[in-house]
Amino acid sequence: MSNTIQGSALDQLFNEARTHNEWSEKPVDEQSVRGLYDLLKWGPTSANCCPARFVWVRSAEGKAKLSAFAMDSNRPKILAAPITVIIAYDLAFPETLPKLNPARGGMMRQMFLQPGIAEVTAMRNGSLQGAYLIIAARALGLDCGPMSGFDNAGVDQAFFSGTRIQSNFICSIGYGKADTPYQRNPRLTFEEAGQFA
Amino acid sequence: MSNTIQGSALDQLFNEARTHNEWSEKPVDEQSVRGLYDLLKWGPTSANCCPARFVWVRSAEGKAKLSAFAMDSNRPKILAAPITVIIAYDLAFPETLPKLNPARGGMMRQMFLQPGIAEVTAMRNGSLQGAYLIIAARALGLDCGPMSGFDNAGVDQAFFSGTRIQSNFICSIGYGKADTPYQRNPRLTFEEAGQFA
Repeated sequence: MSNTIQGSALDQLFNEARTHNEWSEKPVDEQSVRGLYDLLKWGPTSANCCPARFVWVRSAEGKAKLSAFAMDSNRPKILAAPITVIIAYDLAFPETLPKLNPARGGMMRQMFLQPGIAEVTAMRNGSLQGAYLIIAARALGLDCGPMSGFDNAGVDQAFFSGTRIQSNFICSIGYGKADTPYQRNPRLTFEEAGQFA
Repeated sequence: MSNTIQGSALDQLFNEARTHNEWSEKPVDEQSVRGLYDLLKWGPTSANCCPARFVWVRSAEGKAKLSAFAMDSNRPKILAAPITVIIAYDLAFPETLPKLNPARGGMMRQMFLQPGIAEVTAMRNGSLQGAYLIIAARALGLDCGPMSGFDNAGVDQAFFSGTRIQSNFICSIGYGKADTPYQRNPRLTFEEAGQFA
């Protein structure tokens, strides 16, 4: 049985973590990105289907290509961040199940190939994996700036042409400037967000 | 700037965390559930829209009602767990935006009310919040057993009738028995799951 992790870690992951839109000059090296993937990949998905796919946009060319599809307010954030990752999901993920789930993969592959099932499974579990990315990045001392204000179809055409991969959201990663741009917004109370049953 | 959290915490959250399906007798008290919500609520969502809604099923009556809609293999897990939480999302979430986002809530409310936008926003961000729940629970020393094998429409009828709330997935919470039921499944390599650009 586990104990609660250190209070400073709870603060870093949740209580005091903030979305960042402005970035220090400190780069994010390839080793950090690979370390981030090797952490987030352990987050649970349905039948271990792991539908998320990640494009780690770091080159000037890649940033220009991605930012062209972003809302005006998001464009400078992408250009300024060391890396902006496209969190996507592959609708062809059932093909990976025999490898990812040796015990039940063949059966699960058939189930996920039923009409409509792959789509909702990919969106749900690909989004879970996007959240694992955010929390894992924070755990490694990185800051995140997740965004969904962009043209998904345009990004899919530019980055995933000829595949069944679809973009979900994007997230800048780096070391944020200390000053956050606005006051933290409130959250729903426990009762506003739910109930016991 | 933050550092990497302790290695033992990385292990507890990701590297050594496992999905649990069998539960010790130790209960999960109300204070723990409220503490869990007060941690997960800080996870970021688009425009702070916070669409997730949570039903914390802990009564015998609630467990019977929920388990009736579960796949055969999931039914005993729900009945045995101290709590199984229904992670849902409210398609009426735009109405909360003026409160949740004082600076831009009125404008964002209009945007999210456009046809089709609320649905994808609720599913994406409600799923993110479900992942925050899983990781926050682990951070507090709890174990999780997330499941999507159930009749969503039936659960919606039984728990959310007369609202625009829709179930997404469910997750048992408690203190797992030490023996996990099967070998850990493999994950995609960095290259299989993505690329630099």
